[in-house]
Amino acid sequence: MLNVNDLNKKLLEAQYAVRGKIVIKAQELEEQGKKIIYCNIGNPQALKQKPMTYVREVLSLMEFPDLLNDDNFLKGYHKDSVERARFILKNVPGGVGAYSQSAGIPFIRKAVAEFIEKRDNIPAEKERIILTDGASKGVQAVIMSLLKNENDGVMIPIPQYPLYSATLTLYGGKQVDYYLDEQNSWQLNEKVLEDSFLNAKKNGINPVAISVINPGNPTGAVLSYDNIKMILNFAKKYNLSVLADEVYQENIYREGLKFYSFAKVAHDLGITDVPLFSFHSMSKGYLGECGHRAGYFELRNIPQDVLEQFIKLQSISLCSNVIGQIATYLMVSPPKEGDESFELYVKEKDGILKDLKTKAEILGKGLNAVNGMTCEIPQGAMYAFVKFELPHKQGVDPLKLSEEERLKYESGRDNKYCMQLLEETGICVVPGSGFGQLPNTLHFRTTFLPPRDEIETLVEKMKEFHIKYINNPENFN
Amino acid sequence: MLNVNDLNKKLLEAQYAVRGKIVIKAQELEEQGKKIIYCNIGNPQALKQKPMTYVREVLSLMEFPDLLNDDNFLKGYHKDSVERARFILKNVPGGVGAYSQSAGIPFIRKAVAEFIEKRDNIPAEKERIILTDGASKGVQAVIMSLLKNENDGVMIPIPQYPLYSATLTLYGGKQVDYYLDEQNSWQLNEKVLEDSFLNAKKNGINPVAISVINPGNPTGAVLSYDNIKMILNFAKKYNLSVLADEVYQENIYREGLKFYSFAKVAHDLGITDVPLFSFHSMSKGYLGECGHRAGYFELRNIPQDVLEQFIKLQSISLCSNVIGQIATYLMVSPPKEGDESFELYVKEKDGILKDLKTKAEILGKGLNAVNGMTCEIPQGAMYAFVKFELPHKQGVDPLKLSEEERLKYESGRDNKYCMQLLEETGICVVPGSGFGQLPNTLHFRTTFLPPRDEIETLVEKMKEFHIKYINNPENFN
Repeated sequence: MLNVNDLNKKLLEAQYAVRGKIVIKAQELEEQGKKIIYCNIGNPQALKQKPMTYVREVLSLMEFPDLLNDDNFLKGYHKDSVERARFILKNVPGGVGAYSQSAGIPFIRKAVAEFIEKRDNIPAEKERIILTDGASKGVQAVIMSLLKNENDGVMIPIPQYPLYSATLTLYGGKQVDYYLDEQNSWQLNEKVLEDSFLNAKKNGINPVAISVINPGNPTGAVLSYDNIKMILNFAKKYNLSVLADEVYQENIYREGLKFYSFAKVAHDLGITDVPLFSFHSMSKGYLGECGHRAGYFELRNIPQDVLEQFIKLQSISLCSNVIGQIATYLMVSPPKEGDESFELYVKEKDGILKDLKTKAEILGKGLNAVNGMTCEIPQGAMYAFVKFELPHKQGVDPLKLSEEERLKYESGRDNKYCMQLLEETGICVVPGSGFGQLPNTLHFRTTFLPPRDEIETLVEKMKEFHIKYINNPENFN
Repeated sequence: MLNVNDLNKKLLEAQYAVRGKIVIKAQELEEQGKKIIYCNIGNPQALKQKPMTYVREVLSLMEFPDLLNDDNFLKGYHKDSVERARFILKNVPGGVGAYSQSAGIPFIRKAVAEFIEKRDNIPAEKERIILTDGASKGVQAVIMSLLKNENDGVMIPIPQYPLYSATLTLYGGKQVDYYLDEQNSWQLNEKVLEDSFLNAKKNGINPVAISVINPGNPTGAVLSYDNIKMILNFAKKYNLSVLADEVYQENIYREGLKFYSFAKVAHDLGITDVPLFSFHSMSKGYLGECGHRAGYFELRNIPQDVLEQFIKLQSISLCSNVIGQIATYLMVSPPKEGDESFELYVKEKDGILKDLKTKAEILGKGLNAVNGMTCEIPQGAMYAFVKFELPHKQGVDPLKLSEEERLKYESGRDNKYCMQLLEETGICVVPGSGFGQLPNTLHFRTTFLPPRDEIETLVEKMKEFHIKYINNPENFN
């Protein structure tokens, strides 16, 4: 019989809080009939966000191209969706049921390169685009490939999206933490990066890459041009590859802030020797097509033979799902002015983004007003990383705890809080310890994705819960 | 700058012949305008096999559920497809754009369990089904999870499907070869298994599992009930997990042969202590939906805590693509007698399978009749593994070569042959060395998927090429 201790230790050690114990508990409660508000994960369509009509029209035609022969039927579609589907089919004669080339369908890779060229006003090469089943798969492929020796590590932000820590654990790489600057809207700090790198080196760890998430998850921070410049120069100085997780590039709400891609800034600086892997996805932005598992990554400043290794790796799983590849094509090729569905597209897009902006503000301001809670009003992405204060447990002096004891104590505290929040209110959030947090702080991550008319109640419920929780001495015995 | 030698050595070492150098060359030639017949990969819809109407009707409605409100529009659909789409939507309220639960959508896991129960007349549990992006991803997850120590290995058939060798290389597991018995229609041989296992042990390798592909890839063999019984008893004796790759279970052509699942035979034998992982996919059978990357695996004789580790692993990539999950649901829930699309479904299914059977015979018999070629007429799957003879290279006595020299010599020979076949005829097949073959033999794997009216010409071209090749002394200088 297979015993759990017979399994790969790396698997046993890997943690993924976004779908951890609290989420499993939430699913159990839901099956028992309790109403759960899933704020644990950026999954907009599960919370009633409507898909973009244009995208779904084209995808439905791709699934059932027989429809294209029936003019009567096509009356239900916008003309440009029909034309787009015909164009795609001409370029993908096997349709969505055939494996594609390992790196993705050539004309889609080309369209992605053109999208980058247009977005950033820089050159991009179609050969250096690899289509993936969501950005996660791309991140996993790159991290796996960059780990050569046992002591190789990757610098990751704290707080981070736990895909990074889990992937490092699974592939036996060392996690090199650098703290984001909560006081400074979660930007990166050069001194902190230097200290983190040199400290790792001192401990025999060899950082080979730095991961950056912009806009930030879970922080919602939008990095400034100068901050990205600093990071690229830092990577250059220490010979690091850069993993730029840019899946929230469309999700920017704060007036005056703007998305700058790492590719753009590197190009502006004339940096050609910092290997750069940039990730994007259909799952976020205004599309929110998480279920389609569609995305890509771009490889920049990478020699040809390295690129070939990445394509070989893709080939071992054959190719990413083809309807997802086509969805990615639609993301980078939206309707143009003059196309029949253009107006609707813009209206739907603006509606979704405006709604997200409103909800970010309501949630951010609302929680900030709770006594003992603070959070940056999310500048971007889909999350707030909320700091909260609790009385210490009776008899515990946190300053006397060892590092390990402290981590255990703090994760016990935020987990208990979030579990109780779930049980009492049905609101499912993720404890800060799942992302990492500064010593002696507690956080939770919540999305602001529930429908507009539920957000105020959500904030109110969180507030009531918090007051009740801190005033119940039983929670701190 | 990133150098190829900075990459993970395991990645550099991994090989995947089905999409290797010859296929890359084929794509280049195609871009230059040459007509290529892709026989390197089981990709039916790329070779004009039509998708099943029922499947695509439902999937198109899932992509664009607005259609369900338009009665006029729905006239183009079969009634049961519409009902099925409504049923699915009721159970997947977020639609295909939302992440699902990590292991898959609950009602689909249930439907898969019921499918197994009905197919095998044995009990099956929905909690032990995990939906994946094609069977490949499931195989990779299981192999990765079972490798605990550096000297752990997995027994794999030779010839094998190179997913197995590549995955073992990527995750640092040892490959333990066992030869299939070409003289005995490629069945497994107990003595060979024992020798392989004991030999590995002698060399300090600890086999933890055995992989079996039934029906066989690349062999096309259908394993007998007794052969499976032998394998399960062997696994029990040596405390091995079993990976049963059953993706070709619908592809059986030879009269009198029948598919038996490992789950069924294990249940019949009352074996409850051999951990069994069984893989299935939408990509093969009569569906041939490769591009959808849809599949599942069932875990049997596995304790709960081990199961939880597998689900955690899935969660790190969030979930498999949801439209693929729904495709899997349609695979296990075809129309029933009395449903409007039932007749069409049966007609399409029978047509595809009959066509495959005819093509298997034409190709098998045709190549068998070529002087210097032999092959088993494929009993199942989508491939023939064709043995061919070549004169030895001048001055080479293969008996005097070391093991390593011999492998290099032989892979040089079959690669050269297949590359030249491609260049001269446009036919793309995979050299036997990519799958493994007995010492002093040469093979290639070809599918029999090209359209019916092209198969005879294909055989004729292969024959002409072979004669010309062996009669050209330049090939053996």
